[in-house]
Amino acid sequence: MAGYRQHVIIIGGGFGGLEAAKKLKSSDVAVTLIDRANHHLFQPLLYQVATAGLSSPAIAAPIRQIFQKQKNLNVIYGEVVAIDVAKKIVSVADTGDYAYDALIVASGATHSYFGNDQWAQYAPGLKTLDDAQEIRRRILLAYEYAERCTDLEEQQAWLSFAVIGAGPTGVEMAGTLAEIAYQTLRDEFRNINLDHVRITLVEGGDRVLAAYPPELSASAQQQLEKLGVIVRTKSQVSDIDADGITIGKLSESTRPEFLQAKTVIWAAGVAASPLGKQLGVPLDRAGRVVVGQDLTIPNHPDVYVIGDLASFTGKDGKTVPGVSPAAKQMGRCAADNILRKLNGRPSQSFVYKDYGSLATIGRASAIAAVGKLKLSGYPAWLFWLFVHVYFLIGFRNRLVVLTDWAWAYWTYERYARIIIGVRKER
Amino acid sequence: MAGYRQHVIIIGGGFGGLEAAKKLKSSDVAVTLIDRANHHLFQPLLYQVATAGLSSPAIAAPIRQIFQKQKNLNVIYGEVVAIDVAKKIVSVADTGDYAYDALIVASGATHSYFGNDQWAQYAPGLKTLDDAQEIRRRILLAYEYAERCTDLEEQQAWLSFAVIGAGPTGVEMAGTLAEIAYQTLRDEFRNINLDHVRITLVEGGDRVLAAYPPELSASAQQQLEKLGVIVRTKSQVSDIDADGITIGKLSESTRPEFLQAKTVIWAAGVAASPLGKQLGVPLDRAGRVVVGQDLTIPNHPDVYVIGDLASFTGKDGKTVPGVSPAAKQMGRCAADNILRKLNGRPSQSFVYKDYGSLATIGRASAIAAVGKLKLSGYPAWLFWLFVHVYFLIGFRNRLVVLTDWAWAYWTYERYARIIIGVRKER
Repeated sequence: MAGYRQHVIIIGGGFGGLEAAKKLKSSDVAVTLIDRANHHLFQPLLYQVATAGLSSPAIAAPIRQIFQKQKNLNVIYGEVVAIDVAKKIVSVADTGDYAYDALIVASGATHSYFGNDQWAQYAPGLKTLDDAQEIRRRILLAYEYAERCTDLEEQQAWLSFAVIGAGPTGVEMAGTLAEIAYQTLRDEFRNINLDHVRITLVEGGDRVLAAYPPELSASAQQQLEKLGVIVRTKSQVSDIDADGITIGKLSESTRPEFLQAKTVIWAAGVAASPLGKQLGVPLDRAGRVVVGQDLTIPNHPDVYVIGDLASFTGKDGKTVPGVSPAAKQMGRCAADNILRKLNGRPSQSFVYKDYGSLATIGRASAIAAVGKLKLSGYPAWLFWLFVHVYFLIGFRNRLVVLTDWAWAYWTYERYARIIIGVRKER
Repeated sequence: MAGYRQHVIIIGGGFGGLEAAKKLKSSDVAVTLIDRANHHLFQPLLYQVATAGLSSPAIAAPIRQIFQKQKNLNVIYGEVVAIDVAKKIVSVADTGDYAYDALIVASGATHSYFGNDQWAQYAPGLKTLDDAQEIRRRILLAYEYAERCTDLEEQQAWLSFAVIGAGPTGVEMAGTLAEIAYQTLRDEFRNINLDHVRITLVEGGDRVLAAYPPELSASAQQQLEKLGVIVRTKSQVSDIDADGITIGKLSESTRPEFLQAKTVIWAAGVAASPLGKQLGVPLDRAGRVVVGQDLTIPNHPDVYVIGDLASFTGKDGKTVPGVSPAAKQMGRCAADNILRKLNGRPSQSFVYKDYGSLATIGRASAIAAVGKLKLSGYPAWLFWLFVHVYFLIGFRNRLVVLTDWAWAYWTYERYARIIIGVRKER
């Protein structure tokens, strides 16, 4: 664009990319924001779409609409297929090549099956709206198939759900699945007994929500069990097929065990976006790009990596977790450093400000750790609700989500219980 | 089900089937309602989902939830593949055979390409939520592809939209497409001029909304043109491909004409559900089942056909139109006749009560004919809004739809502008 001193490309319209783009508003750089989706996704509520509590548009805002008024910004809907850091060029599939003066890579993470990609068909993960609608479809269909079963054993298989991985997403999914089974669907089926529904949360480590203080993990597990979830820790998954999962032996004294479940949801592994490899710099074990204190990569002071794709260790030796507040802070820092350099000022080091962490479990259940304060149950849930609605992008969506929740809370109904996109029978 | 005097099967959970099922509440018959979707769809607002104004769940209510409290009713999620009127058996794919004492067939209509099924890939029709999401995806993608075009001619092709058929659905679609182009998307693209968007409504007959009084048709056309729609009447489509439509010659003096449009929507033809053929009785030209005065078919006094699948001519010689009020009235009449027969009373003849007709055109534009009263423009639109929100199934959905509309009206935003389900590039 003419009249601007530099061209900044931002790859990814997630929390980090969006913050960086906003920070560059009213500056004298032209910004190009590239995303392969046309919407920003409020990922912390994606599990609500997957469990039919919210509609897809409720947690997605069109990127063009967000930046409608930001005249120095151009949105490109497309997939970045290559980055040439030597020539300073980003290539977008079916669209073209774009030269940059500074680049912010914020393409995030995806789920990983740890080399077992064949599991994907049996145990979908949850990263996009398409993922969420597929999981919703599977959950709702499982009950329909159970209802039509005449064979009791097959019916039990359709009524058995497993969630693999007890991080925040796995815990939310398992808790909400229990709410659906024991509250929402009550009285709706004539041929199945909802007391037979079995929801198992399978975790390889020794406790749920391992990133939280142990007493909150214990509280979370209690809350899950109260909702009806079977929590299995120290249970490593060694195989997944159409009928269930195999839990491998952890020691010589245990034997592999088959856990029947026609519906399996993968919430276990996260892998950094493959774009990290394009930068030609060292990656950590999870495929994340190791960045310096100013969030740039080695030898390329004009290339910033932020958010879930970045591996950052502060001067205090602490690593920054892959959460949305960290991505937003990095986005602001990277944009700020670009403007500082442009104006001949030195870069600032990134300092992560940890506001605490929060995980929801189900209806009126959650845990929160904010500084020294630790909350559980209803107060934690209210706090979680407030924070999530507050940070939702756009006033409109906030209103929609609040209405939907208030309704769901009072009626136990779940709004978005529609089966669509049935392309193949399972 | 034990304890009931008869078993009634209803095929289809549309307006007709739902009314019949509700009417049979608190009676001593067991009811089985079979639908291949898990939700009742409020079809009059489907075009709003297709044009990103509403989310899919806003106009769909889970059938099981609707009948949660109706203990004599069993819902089967499945597709009816055969009806044996001699043996009184309905066969559901992957599920089983069900014997009935009385049957109500309410499986509706689908769109028809008049024998040109190859057009379906280029010009999707609008009957299900999956259809609506596909059309929404195409509309939104067309603008994205136009934005990335460097060739001006190709860009114009992506900015050209055609709607075929100027019945109520075609008029709504064309009007809303104009609203999107000239209002919603303003300021969001950097590379395209929205004034170049061309929306053409193509109609074979000599006026839009042919079922309405001529003065309302004229008003509707005026309102469409004011919104920016190009209305072409007396234009019969003879071919459709990936680049546009061919309008065939109507007389010796006109020549076939190619109208470029990368996005084409089919709103022209309706065909009755293929289940009509299963009944072994005479069908009319549109494939509808000709029913008697009591809505039963010849020689099978226990088989009722209602709604869009029924061809009914009253004692006054008037045929009943394929609209939702007619379907609902037929549903109540058929259910009532089943109960009458059961109690040894004579059947009643169906009498269609015409409350008038309504069509919306776009933002604050509509026409209405209620008895002798004819409304146009804003008053008609307010009336349309009231009627449609009032008849939406379930208080919850009504609230959601009203909020969404109020928001859209004030801000010109369209809520559900998200591209999902991109399975193949166009």
